[in-house]
Amino acid sequence: MKEGAINIGLIGLGTVGSGTFELLQRNSDLIRRRAGCGINIRRIAVRQKDKPRSVDVAPDLLTEDAWEIVNDPAVEIVVEVMGGVEPARALLLSAIEQGKSVVTANKELLAKHGAQLMDAAREKRVDVNFEGSVAGGIPLITPLKQSLAANRIERVTGILNGTTNYILTRMAREGLDFDEALREAQQKGFAESDPSSDVDGHDAAYKLAIVSAIAFGSRIPVEEIFREGISRIRIQDIRYAAELGYVIKLLAIAQSESEGFELRVHPTLLPVEHPLASVSDEFNAIMVEGDGVGRVMFYGKGAGAGPTGSAVVADIIDTARNILHGATGRIPCTCDQSLPLRRYEDVKSMFYFRMLVADRPGVLARIAGILGEEGVSIASMIQKGEQGRLAEVVWITHRARQKAVDRSIQRIQETDIVPQITNVIHVTE
Amino acid sequence: MKEGAINIGLIGLGTVGSGTFELLQRNSDLIRRRAGCGINIRRIAVRQKDKPRSVDVAPDLLTEDAWEIVNDPAVEIVVEVMGGVEPARALLLSAIEQGKSVVTANKELLAKHGAQLMDAAREKRVDVNFEGSVAGGIPLITPLKQSLAANRIERVTGILNGTTNYILTRMAREGLDFDEALREAQQKGFAESDPSSDVDGHDAAYKLAIVSAIAFGSRIPVEEIFREGISRIRIQDIRYAAELGYVIKLLAIAQSESEGFELRVHPTLLPVEHPLASVSDEFNAIMVEGDGVGRVMFYGKGAGAGPTGSAVVADIIDTARNILHGATGRIPCTCDQSLPLRRYEDVKSMFYFRMLVADRPGVLARIAGILGEEGVSIASMIQKGEQGRLAEVVWITHRARQKAVDRSIQRIQETDIVPQITNVIHVTE
Repeated sequence: MKEGAINIGLIGLGTVGSGTFELLQRNSDLIRRRAGCGINIRRIAVRQKDKPRSVDVAPDLLTEDAWEIVNDPAVEIVVEVMGGVEPARALLLSAIEQGKSVVTANKELLAKHGAQLMDAAREKRVDVNFEGSVAGGIPLITPLKQSLAANRIERVTGILNGTTNYILTRMAREGLDFDEALREAQQKGFAESDPSSDVDGHDAAYKLAIVSAIAFGSRIPVEEIFREGISRIRIQDIRYAAELGYVIKLLAIAQSESEGFELRVHPTLLPVEHPLASVSDEFNAIMVEGDGVGRVMFYGKGAGAGPTGSAVVADIIDTARNILHGATGRIPCTCDQSLPLRRYEDVKSMFYFRMLVADRPGVLARIAGILGEEGVSIASMIQKGEQGRLAEVVWITHRARQKAVDRSIQRIQETDIVPQITNVIHVTE
Repeated sequence: MKEGAINIGLIGLGTVGSGTFELLQRNSDLIRRRAGCGINIRRIAVRQKDKPRSVDVAPDLLTEDAWEIVNDPAVEIVVEVMGGVEPARALLLSAIEQGKSVVTANKELLAKHGAQLMDAAREKRVDVNFEGSVAGGIPLITPLKQSLAANRIERVTGILNGTTNYILTRMAREGLDFDEALREAQQKGFAESDPSSDVDGHDAAYKLAIVSAIAFGSRIPVEEIFREGISRIRIQDIRYAAELGYVIKLLAIAQSESEGFELRVHPTLLPVEHPLASVSDEFNAIMVEGDGVGRVMFYGKGAGAGPTGSAVVADIIDTARNILHGATGRIPCTCDQSLPLRRYEDVKSMFYFRMLVADRPGVLARIAGILGEEGVSIASMIQKGEQGRLAEVVWITHRARQKAVDRSIQRIQETDIVPQITNVIHVTE
């Protein structure tokens, strides 16, 4: 065991930073035993030194200048938990160029500039570890890089955003509408005051980009990931889905098929018996399908001080082990390919349609006719409560291309028999 | 990237060996990229060379002498997938003493002689990797050693035996009795012709010993793990459990409490909403609870050529990475403590009782009285169909010590009012 300890610098002392700090303090003996040496927090960069904090930090540990940490020759691991693209990117790049390993939980930075960081790290043979960037404390990045490394990964399906999962769960359980459930999530601290990154699917898309890069060994142009949020989901959709044996979840999906490579984030009807269907509240889960292992699933809390702190400290321990063995850069990035992304309109899926139609003979036949002409075949249909001279109708289709569905919708809307197509949602088996 | 490849020797070419061989062949490009060098199978030891096989192996690769592999100076990693204690133990010890790293999926060997192998490996600074020994392809050992290393682990609860889970699932779904479900499992190849290792809980106890050693950093005397199998579970128990909101699973439980450290394998009533309750058929799942991360769960197939092969090849890749970086022994065993195991009679749990009682006034009060005197308080009771002058009664108790329950049973049986206590099963929340 190394005498003394490895010095780390912590940039950020918000939720994740505090969770990291607390675990390092509380479990220091155990961490020393597992890492092979102690972990010493040499300095912590914060935006404002004299602010009340939930953790008990010696004031002389704090600095308002993150560059002090990056440029300190004694700091061997730079731990970035401040979030956002800049200055995080510049700080980590400089740390790497100085030969330091880095740990980060910054999904936006990795999704947008991961390649640049990985290239720099490979050059310098240092570690960039980022277990905390996806699904909080759930082991996922390390299992993908190591435990599942023998597999050709065929598909990754995840509930990667706790905020939207909480909202959908509350809608389903309590019959709240979207706005009510969002307000409740905000009150409980599960949603930001500006909820768009969660609710519109951007957060899940960042995480999907990170996971897919590792799973498929490819650079991922994050801006090209199709994303649709949950704000269009109505309580009626959740109820009709339940009647048909489905729950609605915001899924992040990556799959490699003979026809191409797909990445997308959107609400999805999932059969109740699917292992992801029972993942409720703010929990996250990821199902990975490999050619050897079959389906494996990982489940837990995807956010919060304790869970994300657990992932960040695990990365610190693992980096320390590599430093002790002179083996930093032991698992370099292998995401060198540039797999062509299939256009969203070419994606094939089952679909759920909900529409208000004129309640008179021949209408359903006409809609079915249009769908049929566009190659969209119907698996099941239910007709629900009438509203005046309109009836609400729900269809589930067999697998069809997105563009065939788009064309069908356009043609149906051009008729006078469907005043309103109220929702179209993906369905998976 | 290293020129050429790392040479491995494979001992065993049964189900797991074939799965390992096949994955190494099929995904060799991908494995080369991820490992940083090729993996070359130099030799495979089998019991009988001229036997028909499911995999296409060049005959000159085969030997009937496993020592040829262990003693071959060109072999850098010895992969043992033959199973059983001897000669596996002697072979692996010799390999380690010669400075080779080893990969094994041999749960019985690790549970019984893991400490000896780990001590030898630490001395020689080589790797002993064993992801395939527990829960097949489900990433568990690596996540415990790395991704969850920041946590003080409080509890591990697992469905670690696919055979018994398959049997219990078939009993619950189809109303089969135990013998029928076992026969079906044998026909499908999920159970051995001598099923005792699975059915009586020994297999799960081996796996629990391995997981607990890592989770709690302690030597585990495997023979002291309490184990009770599923052969006493009747279809009535499953039905009454369902009525009360529970399913019955064979659980392996390890927990560290202020009052001591507990290890046990036994059938358990689990609330239907528990994440492990929906794990069906031959699937495995493990829930780990840590002080930082909270509850995380891992789910997948716990056996079979593909899943276990996936774990074994992952270990080979990881070992190869360490060899390339001169970092074998990077994560040594830290199971140095000898935590005192709580006696089974001191374990506290909720309990389910099913009994046939004389159907006359005062009987239930008398039973309740005995339970109360022994400190076992009742949470709920249902009285079921009568059989002649007997009634079937099911009780669920609050938490009580095992020994209080044992004393109660003895006292109840000494009365003449309960001709038969038909089952007593643990209940968990």
